Amino acid sequence: MGCDLPIGVFDSGVGGLTVAKEIISRLPGERIIYFGDTARVPYGSKSRETVTEYSRQIIRFLISQGVKVIVVACNTASALAVDVVRREFDVPILDVVRPGARTAADATQNGSIGVIGTEGTIRSGIYSKLLYGINPDLNVYGKACPLFVPLVEEGWIYDSVTREVARRYLEEFQGKDVDCLVLGCTHYPLLRNLIRDVVREVLGEGVTLVNPAVETTKDLKFLLAERGLFSGGEDLPEHTFYVSDGAEKFRSLANSILPCNVIETKDVTIKTFE
Amino acid sequence: MGCDLPIGVFDSGVGGLTVAKEIISRLPGERIIYFGDTARVPYGSKSRETVTEYSRQIIRFLISQGVKVIVVACNTASALAVDVVRREFDVPILDVVRPGARTAADATQNGSIGVIGTEGTIRSGIYSKLLYGINPDLNVYGKACPLFVPLVEEGWIYDSVTREVARRYLEEFQGKDVDCLVLGCTHYPLLRNLIRDVVREVLGEGVTLVNPAVETTKDLKFLLAERGLFSGGEDLPEHTFYVSDGAEKFRSLANSILPCNVIETKDVTIKTFE
Repeated sequence: MGCDLPIGVFDSGVGGLTVAKEIISRLPGERIIYFGDTARVPYGSKSRETVTEYSRQIIRFLISQGVKVIVVACNTASALAVDVVRREFDVPILDVVRPGARTAADATQNGSIGVIGTEGTIRSGIYSKLLYGINPDLNVYGKACPLFVPLVEEGWIYDSVTREVARRYLEEFQGKDVDCLVLGCTHYPLLRNLIRDVVREVLGEGVTLVNPAVETTKDLKFLLAERGLFSGGEDLPEHTFYVSDGAEKFRSLANSILPCNVIETKDVTIKTFE
Repeated sequence: MGCDLPIGVFDSGVGGLTVAKEIISRLPGERIIYFGDTARVPYGSKSRETVTEYSRQIIRFLISQGVKVIVVACNTASALAVDVVRREFDVPILDVVRPGARTAADATQNGSIGVIGTEGTIRSGIYSKLLYGINPDLNVYGKACPLFVPLVEEGWIYDSVTREVARRYLEEFQGKDVDCLVLGCTHYPLLRNLIRDVVREVLGEGVTLVNPAVETTKDLKFLLAERGLFSGGEDLPEHTFYVSDGAEKFRSLANSILPCNVIETKDVTIKTFE
């Protein structure tokens, strides 16, 4: 019952596609309804109230599409809104920060963890709170990297400017002996190789990069199993992509990120879901 | 009649403060009501429909505050929305692109003009259309510089990364013999000195930088004179600043840009002005 319903995934824009990509790869029978809030992107610099209200509207939209579970594929919304919206809706809501924190706590050997993310995510202190909750002896250091998202959106993925920006941001962790770095924004896995190189150069060998999308997908798998919600559908279902602005531009970006062909992207007037 | 009413100025965020600054300096008796749409910034990557709808809501809000004239202090909104909204409202609406184009047409000696701006402004081709309208023999070259706004917002104003980004963007004009460069985004005057240096290095001496804010303020002065709307108020009126999100953060940025002290910034739920 409900097994054949789709999984709702949302983000402020294209970043959440790195989460959708993991779900498509690891749970190939599941159908996804993705929403990217491209009319109001980015969330990273916005307040808790605003991000919560935007998340609420999107959740209402996804529920109207009949989803069986919602994945908040945006660290900022996970950090600022999930606690509140989870109490307001009946549909199960997964986020990316809790699985990300758990993986980091598992991965660190020396207890010193770095977190990079948007201004909103870092300022919220969500990763520190969760990590200290798991183990109060950990040391957690956060650094906001507001230029990474526009650099990704400019397409400067392997680029000397992006490398210099990364160097400047990651140097903040020097002397803190971090052995684990959480990519606390869904855009950042798109810069994974560059970040790995710069981390080696600036912080030395032996730092594990944590991509919360991978662990979130494991949680999703567990939740679907537990509630008997695995799809019985065909193996390569058709996913649907909605945005609040610029469907065409989104489609070409989506096609460069996802392992499947995005044929069509639809526009939604999201503010009507108040 | 109406002279003592304030002037409404709006932008997607802080950029329009460079226009407010010119108005405050050149028309010191005028009171400003500023609105920065910080909940939905940036406009530069959004569609014409979305930017028009957002502009409409803000104009309704400013009219509710009793303004005598509105200055659209955002190149993207000027490019994408002004033609439509000007027909919908009775209040006079000034924009920044028309005065900017006029100044550039006056400033060029050899007829070759470069324009830098957001994706939305450049894609709209508004400066080319206006400039060709003034003189069909001009050559106009546009280049979108999407990283400049986030670099300004990161505070990297005099910075080697920003310099390298500027170099890469401005090299696009090499071989085109431009002798005039329009700063077609209200954030860019904050990078004026750096842009001037890089222009010298990359394009040589003798390139005039055009800041549309200056010319817009002259137009505003002319309009107020023509309609008998000059303020008869005191010399140093109190300006009011509204934002759709993050009032506190906006206030500290505003204080670094404006020649007056911004004591308070107020939050507005702008979407209720539909």
